[in-house]
Amino acid sequence: MTVPGFGASEVTVPGFRASGVCCGIKERDPDLGLIVSAVPATAAGVFTRSSVPGAPVVLTKQRLRSGRKRGVIVNSGISNVAMGARGLRTAEAMTAMAARELGCSPEEVLVASTGVIGEPIPLARIRAGLPLAREALSPGGLGDTARAIMTTDTFPKLASRRVRVGGRLVTIAGIAKGSGMIEPRMATMLAFLLTDAPVAAPFLRRLLRTTADETFNRVSIDGETSTSDTVLLLANGVAGGAPLRDPRSPGARALAEALLAVCTDLSRDLARDGEGATKLVTVRVEGARTRSEAERAVRRIGNSMLVKTALFGGDPNWGRILQTVGAGEVRINLERAEVRLGGVAVYRRGGSAGPRARARAGKKLTEPEIEIRVDLATGRGRASLWTCDLSYDYVRINAEYTT
Amino acid sequence: MTVPGFGASEVTVPGFRASGVCCGIKERDPDLGLIVSAVPATAAGVFTRSSVPGAPVVLTKQRLRSGRKRGVIVNSGISNVAMGARGLRTAEAMTAMAARELGCSPEEVLVASTGVIGEPIPLARIRAGLPLAREALSPGGLGDTARAIMTTDTFPKLASRRVRVGGRLVTIAGIAKGSGMIEPRMATMLAFLLTDAPVAAPFLRRLLRTTADETFNRVSIDGETSTSDTVLLLANGVAGGAPLRDPRSPGARALAEALLAVCTDLSRDLARDGEGATKLVTVRVEGARTRSEAERAVRRIGNSMLVKTALFGGDPNWGRILQTVGAGEVRINLERAEVRLGGVAVYRRGGSAGPRARARAGKKLTEPEIEIRVDLATGRGRASLWTCDLSYDYVRINAEYTT
Repeated sequence: MTVPGFGASEVTVPGFRASGVCCGIKERDPDLGLIVSAVPATAAGVFTRSSVPGAPVVLTKQRLRSGRKRGVIVNSGISNVAMGARGLRTAEAMTAMAARELGCSPEEVLVASTGVIGEPIPLARIRAGLPLAREALSPGGLGDTARAIMTTDTFPKLASRRVRVGGRLVTIAGIAKGSGMIEPRMATMLAFLLTDAPVAAPFLRRLLRTTADETFNRVSIDGETSTSDTVLLLANGVAGGAPLRDPRSPGARALAEALLAVCTDLSRDLARDGEGATKLVTVRVEGARTRSEAERAVRRIGNSMLVKTALFGGDPNWGRILQTVGAGEVRINLERAEVRLGGVAVYRRGGSAGPRARARAGKKLTEPEIEIRVDLATGRGRASLWTCDLSYDYVRINAEYTT
Repeated sequence: MTVPGFGASEVTVPGFRASGVCCGIKERDPDLGLIVSAVPATAAGVFTRSSVPGAPVVLTKQRLRSGRKRGVIVNSGISNVAMGARGLRTAEAMTAMAARELGCSPEEVLVASTGVIGEPIPLARIRAGLPLAREALSPGGLGDTARAIMTTDTFPKLASRRVRVGGRLVTIAGIAKGSGMIEPRMATMLAFLLTDAPVAAPFLRRLLRTTADETFNRVSIDGETSTSDTVLLLANGVAGGAPLRDPRSPGARALAEALLAVCTDLSRDLARDGEGATKLVTVRVEGARTRSEAERAVRRIGNSMLVKTALFGGDPNWGRILQTVGAGEVRINLERAEVRLGGVAVYRRGGSAGPRARARAGKKLTEPEIEIRVDLATGRGRASLWTCDLSYDYVRINAEYTT
């Protein structure tokens, strides 16, 4: 077994090959990706909870009900959403075409699409592009796949970790795309996670759900759960050893920790690269009456246009933060609550911490990474969220182009 | 009884006088308003449901529990929110000062404030300004009060109707301010409604709540319920006649209709003048499984940054409309659903209505008033909302200035 070198552009997972090519759905950028495992892999997925999921989501969920998987076909440019029965036929055709190229059955292929809603995917272009994608498959090709799934993303998102499982070094790597229409809930945008660790399917499903809840489901760019949210985790066991089954085993714990690290990296990159974003913002709420009130509070703050524009402007406006929490009818003990921006307390003991604190916080808000920390002083509930600011560019991107 | 002439700038209600002056809370614009009834009036209010209501909200709610009222003091520039015990003392002091000027008891005076959160109101300026405000009181002064309560509003909002109640001509007039931090829920932003009709207090309360639910609570600029939302309705009975008590009486119905018309005018103006707005948008959802799903759908659409930026850009993007409804986990029958923009069906029978419909809808979206109508085809629930688009100016206003 070789454990290849790591780098932002060359991430490899033993037994997996990947590629990303141009097939002409977009005008010039890569738009077709393939991921293939040399041997059948256990697979798990989490998906959008939108009531109008895309056809690829419907088909991939169905395919994940049984059997091991060999590959994933993914395109960007058109999302294959709201296309009726035709959408499902298109998704099925994509997996059948990929299966022919890979020499496996369509049931072993998963599919995802991202892009414009309500347009038909040009199947002829997919058919023409697939041989190129197959030829381009390489162990280090995951970076190309990451580029092929981008829409308004400004950089490809890859992350990886190596970790020891049962005496063997295993790799876990992932790619993701995000940018707009992002508030994954119990699901997420597109992400593909690969490992050569051997993992039993029930544990794999549980592991993915738990990790997604702590990472992708903690991101919001604009409060909009997409119709195409899909995270897939494939484990091909090429590293060898007995399949991981018991979540409490040391190997399972090590893998879970590595997966959490990879997904955290990807999630932070999603928020950092939100449409028009100039800042990565981490919102932490603590001291809430309940966990669910903390959850509501971080989402109010992270999705508030007033807070997000203030962050863009570098305005340490704690009033808007408390206001939006209050608007969510979340209980606050104003006499004891505290608001910290970039570590500087700007609201405490029932009032403003004064103009000097405000000035220091304003300086912190010019940094590329910002933390908002709010203590509601009514209990022990806590939650966090990664988000970004709301800039002129968000309006430009979404007013001037159809997505 | 004289029934004075009507005009946008000169609205009068018999027995009421009003004024708006500069007292120096803001740098130069009017910032202090007074409304006075010659005789004690029955009064009702609806307020923010924020868990951090401003001190004036707390005090005015308390004052409304009993007795008739003589007047209202209101300031803009500072909202007297999140100021602890000092905030309540300030609100009480404001009513006491106004009561001295008006020769009544503080319990007969209501108070409202709007503006920056977390700053102290300079009471000395209010004290100095009040004699000017009293001297300026005039029957036609309501337009000045409307100007004195503006924050980022670009025009004062007044509306009025005359209607026959029990053989007598009565007037109902109102003023409002809005602009940002606007999504009144079971409450609203600042609005003051006056009538010379005689109305018993229990019916007045019921009337205001019902009307607010159909008007102010159907507006959202940015999904942010303010800490200061206050609507007051004062009825001084100067028109004469027996107090209206029975909602089914012809007089009560006539008054209710006139109040609905006044509040509808004001609500539409609030949406039209949302921060940075270039368009008044009416969102109508019908065919929802339940009334509450219709409600959730109109609020998803009206508060969606993706939909609002598309409207700003004139992009007939039905995909974003269906997507945000789906993100709210609202049931849609995609095969039978329909989306109309400015009356043009752009999505129907399971798919796009084609590029020509799209082009026609795009043209409609350049108009200053737009209707979005969505039929979810899953039941009979319906709801509507007034909102506006999201422009560069919203970002500019909220990024470059502290509010």
